[in-house]
Amino acid sequence: MKKSMGAKTMPMPAPVWVVGTYDAGGRANVMTASWVGICCSKPPCIAISLRKATYSYGNIVARQAFTISVPSARYIKEADYIGIASGRNVNKFVKTGLTAVASKLVDAPYVEEFPVVMECKVLHTLEIGLHTQFIGEILDIKIEESLLTPQDSPDVEKLGLFVLLEGYRGIGAYLGEAFSIGKDI
Amino acid sequence: MKKSMGAKTMPMPAPVWVVGTYDAGGRANVMTASWVGICCSKPPCIAISLRKATYSYGNIVARQAFTISVPSARYIKEADYIGIASGRNVNKFVKTGLTAVASKLVDAPYVEEFPVVMECKVLHTLEIGLHTQFIGEILDIKIEESLLTPQDSPDVEKLGLFVLLEGYRGIGAYLGEAFSIGKDI
Repeated sequence: MKKSMGAKTMPMPAPVWVVGTYDAGGRANVMTASWVGICCSKPPCIAISLRKATYSYGNIVARQAFTISVPSARYIKEADYIGIASGRNVNKFVKTGLTAVASKLVDAPYVEEFPVVMECKVLHTLEIGLHTQFIGEILDIKIEESLLTPQDSPDVEKLGLFVLLEGYRGIGAYLGEAFSIGKDI
Repeated sequence: MKKSMGAKTMPMPAPVWVVGTYDAGGRANVMTASWVGICCSKPPCIAISLRKATYSYGNIVARQAFTISVPSARYIKEADYIGIASGRNVNKFVKTGLTAVASKLVDAPYVEEFPVVMECKVLHTLEIGLHTQFIGEILDIKIEESLLTPQDSPDVEKLGLFVLLEGYRGIGAYLGEAFSIGKDI
């Protein structure tokens, strides 16, 4: 028997990604976002939704670019802090001790210490309601070389990513190959 | 040192959600999608991206409605199969033995056996490239009552959800409270 929870959003689960931008003065800023996801394979695109009130919103509108840095659980406190504080009031790179790296492909910085990075230029901007969705074309994904398998795939155990699902949770056990384990039905 | 992986999509991680629709003849269909995510808090909205070639694409365009049923790992083979087969050639409910329930809120069916359901009406349709993004307003979320805590929150261990990240993976250990564990930075 299913219970109605009402008209609301509940991560089932949602990623935890850190959006990197430059402000009008060229200062690097980061914010954590979970209303995000891949939205197209060709061109490769991701969608991120931000409130207009965020400092990052104006930065993206002005520069039409952003990066995503995906934190490992080692930096879970920093990632959480980056989602609480505003770049209007504080330099979050200074406060966390994280390192801003200037992307060579887009006009935005990423986080050196985080294992996975995506560099994006804005293709579409869609006003939905409280949130505005920016669709960014992925110009490159960069992954820490020591966290790749010999076949150049991400080594999930070493990456140590986490998701939002009633708090933060790690990635669990391997359950099977996609587009494969259902073939015998 | 980060290694460039090129311009492509890589789940970091991505949800595994099943989209429910009716076809022109009123037959219930389902497909598995991972290019999905929450995209607005008010109104509560999710975004799903489908290729035009899918049977579900035409169904959503015609009915302007869809549901999301979130599978538990118990049904991982069924969820994978639903992502491989096309509703054009096969009745996936018959083939999997899953049960289609007619939503009372939107013109689409959901999967009885899956623990979490979202019922959505289409607010925006955006052509991106290979994928078209449908943004659906969530009119209700329903969760299996036996999988809720006494405080009516989802019991994550009982839900048994999984994600796409180099294959299917379960949800791992609890790591901390969101918007909280970073406060001491």
